[in-house]
Amino acid sequence: VLDQRALPAEERWLRCERVEDVAEAIRSMAVRGAPAIGLAAAYGLALAARTGMQFEEAASLLLSTRPTAANLGWAIDRARAAGEDPLDFARSLETDQLEADTRLAELGAECMGRGERVLTHCNTGPLATGGYGTAGGVIRAAWEQGRLEQVWVDETRPLLQGARLTAWELGRLGIPYRVVADSAAGSLMNRGLVDRVVVGADRIAANGDVANKVGTYPLAVVAERHGVPFHVAAPVSTIDPDTPTGAEIPIEERDPSEVAAGLPALNPAFDVTPAELVTTIFTEAGVLEPPYDQSIARALGR
Amino acid sequence: VLDQRALPAEERWLRCERVEDVAEAIRSMAVRGAPAIGLAAAYGLALAARTGMQFEEAASLLLSTRPTAANLGWAIDRARAAGEDPLDFARSLETDQLEADTRLAELGAECMGRGERVLTHCNTGPLATGGYGTAGGVIRAAWEQGRLEQVWVDETRPLLQGARLTAWELGRLGIPYRVVADSAAGSLMNRGLVDRVVVGADRIAANGDVANKVGTYPLAVVAERHGVPFHVAAPVSTIDPDTPTGAEIPIEERDPSEVAAGLPALNPAFDVTPAELVTTIFTEAGVLEPPYDQSIARALGR
Repeated sequence: VLDQRALPAEERWLRCERVEDVAEAIRSMAVRGAPAIGLAAAYGLALAARTGMQFEEAASLLLSTRPTAANLGWAIDRARAAGEDPLDFARSLETDQLEADTRLAELGAECMGRGERVLTHCNTGPLATGGYGTAGGVIRAAWEQGRLEQVWVDETRPLLQGARLTAWELGRLGIPYRVVADSAAGSLMNRGLVDRVVVGADRIAANGDVANKVGTYPLAVVAERHGVPFHVAAPVSTIDPDTPTGAEIPIEERDPSEVAAGLPALNPAFDVTPAELVTTIFTEAGVLEPPYDQSIARALGR
Repeated sequence: VLDQRALPAEERWLRCERVEDVAEAIRSMAVRGAPAIGLAAAYGLALAARTGMQFEEAASLLLSTRPTAANLGWAIDRARAAGEDPLDFARSLETDQLEADTRLAELGAECMGRGERVLTHCNTGPLATGGYGTAGGVIRAAWEQGRLEQVWVDETRPLLQGARLTAWELGRLGIPYRVVADSAAGSLMNRGLVDRVVVGADRIAANGDVANKVGTYPLAVVAERHGVPFHVAAPVSTIDPDTPTGAEIPIEERDPSEVAAGLPALNPAFDVTPAELVTTIFTEAGVLEPPYDQSIARALGR
């Protein structure tokens, strides 16, 4: 796996030979992004099978790494149910992920006008999914269709996934962008410089509440004040029908030293945006609209 | 002057012998905080007088350093009108600043209950005023009166005035605090962990709109959503009656490299919080309440 902690300074690859290596890569955020975590877990189960570790032991190890992303449990549940060779399953998941990403990116881009200035938070491109990207995929498709003028990239403290990863991805694609401090998004919206916000998700509850990288919720609140559409882009695997509302989503607290080394600090990695602030959700099963409890149930075929 | 760029790692002092040194200290943010900038400018004028530079030449040089803080122009206008020895004027300004800070801190603290958890942004303690502090002074007075449980300190990107300066000041005073990423304030309020927001100001327009460090505006928007009182603490010298509304406040854009070295970036240093989101303004002339056009006119004796 490409070690995302070292980007953009260095393209360092980690070789995972055992499921323990995969679990450590997820925990340390060498691999991050909800869909990419799910995919890594599937390959981790294949490694476990190869080394003779019991499925449930490997599953439990992987589940212990990070609590918020729905895709982790989803991938493990699917692998358990599939019963096929775990490596075949992981490969099919990778193919499915690319297809889902591509589809939701097309659907999302179609909702945009021309020459838009889109603001995004965290990283949601290929690095985050192992495919085409979620919000990052929508942005890429919009760019290829001439719908995009520029991307505002939230730097995304404390780990700078925006300034390090999203800027790196957009730069390679030749998509114009500018990095801003997370706290500057309000100023940009107030000055009329943002046409749309598109973000990814780590878990979407059955009612449409969205857990995503910390800072997403205030973005949504300010966007509402300015009438700026606020979209979430995520594969169906990020929707957890067993989580009724955002209040039940476990929010990971990471090491305070990520925020301020040597000082007392609090470091919630995610926040919850209530469904009422979400304009639409782009998925491979369609563009979901409020009321989300109903559109989500339909998308999941329930 | 204490070089605030080097804190908290090092207590480095800069010796300013000429007004040019003072201007450079303000421009480079070795000295920062609206009241402290005004005070530094007054001493800069005294240095100019000593070296035989014309008043208006020195004033023009100082005014060119940073455009947003009202106190800079205010101090220069007062020095011009005073006509006394510039050094005597600067010293009287310093005394006045400490008195104003102390008074507004008392008035602000009186508005608080007991055991409150206060969130603040940027740095507004003694470093920012040369006196007792504005929002930082309110926090200190509240602590001494047993009204404060803990301070949430926004790290304040890109220059980390919260994590570097406010944490340093609170630590020296023994006031309990925790640093958070700027984007985490929404999550804290959503979890009911913030009883009150108190911030400083760089310029307050005649209608009560407030320019302050970028990130203040989204804080105010989210605070309103959660019914969390949002207070501004500033001496009367920060109010500019010649600026009708926030739309006329010049917002400094600083070097993009402060946000993301080597990448395209935008770095607005301030944003504007509309008066309608401000619960009260603590000044040495009283606690101003809406409608601010009237309470401000009264405070300025107009």
